[in-house]
Amino acid sequence: MQVAVVGANGKIGQQLVELLQDNAEHEVVALVRKEEQQQQWQEKGVEARLADLEGTVAQLEDALAGVDAVAFTAGSGGNSGDDKTLLVDLDGAVKTMEAAQATGAKRFVMVSAWQSNNRENWADELKPYYAAKHYADRELMRSGLEWTIVRPGALTDDKGTGRVDIGEHLPAGKIPREDVVHVLLGCLTTDGMVGKAFDVMSAD
Amino acid sequence: MQVAVVGANGKIGQQLVELLQDNAEHEVVALVRKEEQQQQWQEKGVEARLADLEGTVAQLEDALAGVDAVAFTAGSGGNSGDDKTLLVDLDGAVKTMEAAQATGAKRFVMVSAWQSNNRENWADELKPYYAAKHYADRELMRSGLEWTIVRPGALTDDKGTGRVDIGEHLPAGKIPREDVVHVLLGCLTTDGMVGKAFDVMSAD
Repeated sequence: MQVAVVGANGKIGQQLVELLQDNAEHEVVALVRKEEQQQQWQEKGVEARLADLEGTVAQLEDALAGVDAVAFTAGSGGNSGDDKTLLVDLDGAVKTMEAAQATGAKRFVMVSAWQSNNRENWADELKPYYAAKHYADRELMRSGLEWTIVRPGALTDDKGTGRVDIGEHLPAGKIPREDVVHVLLGCLTTDGMVGKAFDVMSAD
Repeated sequence: MQVAVVGANGKIGQQLVELLQDNAEHEVVALVRKEEQQQQWQEKGVEARLADLEGTVAQLEDALAGVDAVAFTAGSGGNSGDDKTLLVDLDGAVKTMEAAQATGAKRFVMVSAWQSNNRENWADELKPYYAAKHYADRELMRSGLEWTIVRPGALTDDKGTGRVDIGEHLPAGKIPREDVVHVLLGCLTTDGMVGKAFDVMSAD
């Protein structure tokens, strides 16, 4: 299976590309915004393509050519304004879905956020971000793609433990990015995960 | 028919409340955010209720009690940040739809924006606003409500001419708010307008 990692320059995206590169069963395509990021991946032997989430759907279709599955790990980032939240986390995600529909990349795994599906759990200072993720997730559920929505808790750079809890509504908590990345790989490769949306946290 | 005007303190909202107040066939409820706005409407003999689009769906259900139709004329306004664009124009609109579903207010007429359905026509500096309107409109189309989406061009305070063009894709142009308000009343009261979304402009 050829998997495109959208947001391959982000912390989760980088780890997912490396995990897929080490996996003999799959090919990975790193999608990045800048040419220097593309070069960096190419120097590591990874196919990398340019994809600007603020560009057109047609450009994203080019970036997804030949791809079977998409892992959407991109985020506008905490330091950008809420204009980018709307244009990247929401509209950029939906444009990627539209491109996937057009090119036949049927599997689509979304990195969302803990409880983005429940307004009452949106932290005040992050409400716009949660709203963008919420509506992107809703669009994905109605896209006709073979979707999975992964809603991790607070992300850490700790080493993964390999032990996670998943569930419809977990208490707030943390999870290392390394563990999230393994969950994403599992979602990409397990048919039984299609049509599922869940919180994911470190287990005790 | 009892019509709730959401955003009754806005320029379109005010005119629509007044038009409905003068119409013997309908009752109007003005939904506003502040108590002083509520008092102002009450002094004019208009039933007014408090409705905060950043509040809960349950609060919006209270505001829509007994209402048959909703006209959503609220907007975060040009001077507010894109956080409010996400939380008012998008999430606030969808919360109002959810409240309408819960209370049985079946008709829902949305004031959207010219070509909010076509990304290629979103003006650069207004892209986040257009994106918010676009996704609110998409949610409305899938809500099960009896929806109409009105996408006016650049709004002016000129006197209405009573002559408008409507269409799936009109050239950019202007339209007086007074004309938009009459279109909204027509949409609220004409069964044939259910399930329609269209641009509206001043006609020659």
